[in-house]
Amino acid sequence: MADIRNLIESIENRDPRAIARAVSMVENSSPDSGQILGSLDRNKIEKAKLIGITGPPGAGKSTLTSQLIELYRKRNKRIGVIAIDPTSPISGGAILGDRIRMMDHALDNDVVVRSMATRGRLGGLCGAAGAAARIMAGSGCSTIIIETVGVGQSEIDIVKLADITLLVTAPGLGDDIQAMKAGLLEVADLLVVNKADCPGADGLAMDMEGVARQKPKLPDNLSRVCLTSAAEGHGVEKLIETIDQVDLFLRQSGEHSERRKNAEILEILDWALEMVRPRLLDLIEKSEAQHDCDPKMAAANIVKQFSATTEGAKK
Amino acid sequence: MADIRNLIESIENRDPRAIARAVSMVENSSPDSGQILGSLDRNKIEKAKLIGITGPPGAGKSTLTSQLIELYRKRNKRIGVIAIDPTSPISGGAILGDRIRMMDHALDNDVVVRSMATRGRLGGLCGAAGAAARIMAGSGCSTIIIETVGVGQSEIDIVKLADITLLVTAPGLGDDIQAMKAGLLEVADLLVVNKADCPGADGLAMDMEGVARQKPKLPDNLSRVCLTSAAEGHGVEKLIETIDQVDLFLRQSGEHSERRKNAEILEILDWALEMVRPRLLDLIEKSEAQHDCDPKMAAANIVKQFSATTEGAKK
Repeated sequence: MADIRNLIESIENRDPRAIARAVSMVENSSPDSGQILGSLDRNKIEKAKLIGITGPPGAGKSTLTSQLIELYRKRNKRIGVIAIDPTSPISGGAILGDRIRMMDHALDNDVVVRSMATRGRLGGLCGAAGAAARIMAGSGCSTIIIETVGVGQSEIDIVKLADITLLVTAPGLGDDIQAMKAGLLEVADLLVVNKADCPGADGLAMDMEGVARQKPKLPDNLSRVCLTSAAEGHGVEKLIETIDQVDLFLRQSGEHSERRKNAEILEILDWALEMVRPRLLDLIEKSEAQHDCDPKMAAANIVKQFSATTEGAKK
Repeated sequence: MADIRNLIESIENRDPRAIARAVSMVENSSPDSGQILGSLDRNKIEKAKLIGITGPPGAGKSTLTSQLIELYRKRNKRIGVIAIDPTSPISGGAILGDRIRMMDHALDNDVVVRSMATRGRLGGLCGAAGAAARIMAGSGCSTIIIETVGVGQSEIDIVKLADITLLVTAPGLGDDIQAMKAGLLEVADLLVVNKADCPGADGLAMDMEGVARQKPKLPDNLSRVCLTSAAEGHGVEKLIETIDQVDLFLRQSGEHSERRKNAEILEILDWALEMVRPRLLDLIEKSEAQHDCDPKMAAANIVKQFSATTEGAKK
């Protein structure tokens, strides 16, 4: 108890090790994790800006993230980064190696980076990422970037935690881009065409304008399409201004609190499924003999069994 | 009842509309779906070869799939294709447009194609894809390809349904490839370097050889790394031979039945979670007032409530 109070105090004092420890405790379902999350400063959590960055591999998301960090630091903002990586237990730190650019900020105590692997994890990622964002906010990060490498469903779910989401694309990434644009369209507030100085960028920007026209209009004719060349730092300053304007608009229009509410539901659901999953799996493995050629019927039986064996049922 | 018998008969007679209808019924949780899945020919399901194809966008998976279809058709095999697409409800058929190459086979009754969107779906994809594979096998498809566009966790889970998995990469796809290789490494049996005639292919092949060395050896010094230029059709014949050899090896070594067993558990778990999820969500939305700054504690309460309100509990 006193330990947790100390931990919270250290988090508020921006101690990097306390922050890392708290995130790990929540990720590993320590019995104290509830108390940690419950003790964080809600006002700070409410005020923090959660930026989701997603998009296909090769679009330059890491470079853009690094540029955003640099510019936010110039504005004296304390910043958190949650990197969602499809790393495997086998190759372990591959990603951190790739993210060498982020190392520019490795000695800066006001840049808090946390990598979260999607591999070897069957669920619980939304909950864990949400918890990390809360802890970072509680430690005084006013801006928190959630960056995904993958473009699958679980990654899309994670950016739903964000207050505002950027879809980063770049010219020359092939046919499948069309497909991914579609999948990420709904969750993206801003469509960033990176590598805007490369051939094909104009065409891609026009495509994106077409996509943007299907979404609700922003005030003051603010465009949802932003051009950047992150490697050269072009357009990133403008992007930050646009992010701020859109964030303000979303807060004023009530959309912000709506999203936060939905994000909270998503987090709770994720933790709940995480708690239920091992118990279901256990039942499935025990009932092996019953399996027939019909997995769906087997599932219905398992769910029935589950409710019959839970604590509540014994009352 | 007689209807279902007719449907099964039509499936066995390779009627494309019956196949499509059965897959839709299972996907949409029709009350008859259990009976459909249970009535399929188990022997055909056991014998069918499920090939998972995954890899980053731009690697040329669709072109390779199309080439595989063509060569399997030349060998007079009936073939099924399940395309997992992160399409959104908004842009609907974007993917099918992109997959124009697969249209070469649109008039061929012995190529059964089914697209499954990951968007707008919170789960149940593994179950649905597994069911589609069973139905296709039941209709006489001896080879079924499960192709994913995304590279996220849910896509990786889906290729776990496969008997043998191909990870397709290509040179020039940027830094993030490293990251994705890591994530997909464990599930891949064969590492396909596509666009093998493009600059950078040799380096990529060497990287892949390095990856392959971390995996168990195949018999007869069979290499896990395959070079193809799918657009020109180079190397695809060889790839099919390798697939057949590895499949045979996996069946003889017992790994095949192990994977099938795990796939079945995965399918059952997926359906079970799918059944539990809406009930949990309902409870979360109803208990809104209880939410505090701690989503994890809230989840524990929801799971408790869930077991107290289920049928079993009322007994």
